[in-house]
Amino acid sequence: MNPDAPRPHAVAELLERSRELTTPALRAAVARLAPPMDTVGAYHFGWIDAEGRPADGDSGKAVRPALALLSAEAAGAAPEVGVPGAVAVELVHNFSLLHDDLMDGDEQRRHRDTVWKVHGPAQAILVGDALFALAGEIILDGDDSIAARGARRLASASRRLIDGQAQDIAFEHRERVSVDECLTMEGNKTGALLAFAASIGAVLGGADDPLADALDTYGRHLGLAFQAVDDLLGIWGDPRSTGKLTWSDLRQRKKSLPVVAAMAAEGPAAARLTALLTADAKKSREEFEDFDEEEFAARAALIEEAGGRQWTADEARRQYETAIGALDAVPLPLDTRERLTALADFVVVRSK
Amino acid sequence: MNPDAPRPHAVAELLERSRELTTPALRAAVARLAPPMDTVGAYHFGWIDAEGRPADGDSGKAVRPALALLSAEAAGAAPEVGVPGAVAVELVHNFSLLHDDLMDGDEQRRHRDTVWKVHGPAQAILVGDALFALAGEIILDGDDSIAARGARRLASASRRLIDGQAQDIAFEHRERVSVDECLTMEGNKTGALLAFAASIGAVLGGADDPLADALDTYGRHLGLAFQAVDDLLGIWGDPRSTGKLTWSDLRQRKKSLPVVAAMAAEGPAAARLTALLTADAKKSREEFEDFDEEEFAARAALIEEAGGRQWTADEARRQYETAIGALDAVPLPLDTRERLTALADFVVVRSK
Repeated sequence: MNPDAPRPHAVAELLERSRELTTPALRAAVARLAPPMDTVGAYHFGWIDAEGRPADGDSGKAVRPALALLSAEAAGAAPEVGVPGAVAVELVHNFSLLHDDLMDGDEQRRHRDTVWKVHGPAQAILVGDALFALAGEIILDGDDSIAARGARRLASASRRLIDGQAQDIAFEHRERVSVDECLTMEGNKTGALLAFAASIGAVLGGADDPLADALDTYGRHLGLAFQAVDDLLGIWGDPRSTGKLTWSDLRQRKKSLPVVAAMAAEGPAAARLTALLTADAKKSREEFEDFDEEEFAARAALIEEAGGRQWTADEARRQYETAIGALDAVPLPLDTRERLTALADFVVVRSK
Repeated sequence: MNPDAPRPHAVAELLERSRELTTPALRAAVARLAPPMDTVGAYHFGWIDAEGRPADGDSGKAVRPALALLSAEAAGAAPEVGVPGAVAVELVHNFSLLHDDLMDGDEQRRHRDTVWKVHGPAQAILVGDALFALAGEIILDGDDSIAARGARRLASASRRLIDGQAQDIAFEHRERVSVDECLTMEGNKTGALLAFAASIGAVLGGADDPLADALDTYGRHLGLAFQAVDDLLGIWGDPRSTGKLTWSDLRQRKKSLPVVAAMAAEGPAAARLTALLTADAKKSREEFEDFDEEEFAARAALIEEAGGRQWTADEARRQYETAIGALDAVPLPLDTRERLTALADFVVVRSK
């Protein structure tokens, strides 16, 4: 989106650097848990397999830790200063994945069986709890003033993350959700933790509140852009890239942005879609799972016809632009600004 | 245990005062959660019934919040200063109850259906998570230095609490657990949060570390004394007082202190008990639940004959004395010291 941004390989390097700096600290943090949680945690992160043998599993794209390191650089500090922030972000993100997978009954994550499936529900709950507590300990391990400021941002982001998950679940049982309600939910569920990632490095690097707040705003809108793209992929993504079933979010009756935007539109396609989804909401899970491909394809076509797909793509761009715009409010080292922009480009144009 | 301690009604007043000061702040905190978590939280605390009507449920004895208020007084502050600490303690304690009840499959708590039973497992997980996050926010809402010191103690206590729960679950599947392992588990599961309760008020009141640490030590050993008494009641408690089944802990095959102390003893009773419990560990849950009263009574009698009951009662007294002894290390207002002693007496001699 930005023709002056570094080439894609620069983002790949950024993510690679972030993995290299963060993973050892993250592994050391997880190793502090009491057995068997240390092993279960290592399985979740893909460091060992279900039998305890070393593994090299996919542990995610590392966008969040990369943001935390860039955030430290934004405050004029070395990227290493952001590492405790990157670790805390990864711990909270994975706490939420462990609990979400159990609540949603998801059996696969990153092409592997989920923790509750392998080690049972109690371990998924406990290890999630432990990672969450650990995140707080790590952020608090420093100078009092920085520790308190960082921990407040962490607590607030975590609570919004939990609020967002509660709203997301509640929406699945409702016939109608407004676009505003959906954006609030996604701002909580995805925006809050990216806002924390984008601001915590600066806090650890001694930045003042205006700088940290501008980075927070950048991260929040980047999160909303990210989620809008995710919502598009949740319906129209290529299963070979997403690792999920076709029409994944439609199968789960998610009230994602394309769906709520289409239902809020005028015209016959919106009316037909609304009638179908209202009837769907009354079906049992079993009836719904018996749907064949064409029925989901028909719903996806109606969402597109009613303008939900285009609105969501436009919204991703709007959020992206608001994110980048937030960086104008504060002085930033030029190369850090370029990297924050490149990372935003990567997040919005990613194909999986 | 202490002939000079205030009469029991003084402890009743202390607990009543603590409830009066803490409950409004606790209700305001829970009301901050996103729907439907606010309602589910209110149900858990007994403020509303399953249909949402106001209720006046039993919300526990309030020993933990009473400790937090006394702790503020120990630092020469007004008890009100300890209220955020009392609220945080209650939030973390109830976070752990919500998750424990789900993990253990317990359907009743304080004579009411548990949250997962009424509102489903997802709400039990989410509301637990939210209460935990809220506890951090509340402790962090003040002066940076006090906030950081308080939040570090909270994070460390929470993580030990989670470690303790993980150890407790792991022990149920093991044939043998040593007395030391059991004490470590109980120090985590029960001692850590009482240590936090006993020290956080002082931290909020501006106490230095030696005073807070002495109160932490008092709370930790008081927690171990409390748990030893709880372990005795878990086997020999009167069901009319405990609200549990007879031989409750034996039915759950808990490796509690009387059990592990008896198994560690010499002599024929210990040997016979060990043989029985080793065979029990191999039984399915269904086979085990078919046991009749006499079989549990026989195990309880062997535990007593092997000295497990007496050892645990002695241990409760030892822990109580260590707790009270910790108060000698620091200067305390005389009436605060008396109240801390009275509360300890109450905890150790309670019949339920």
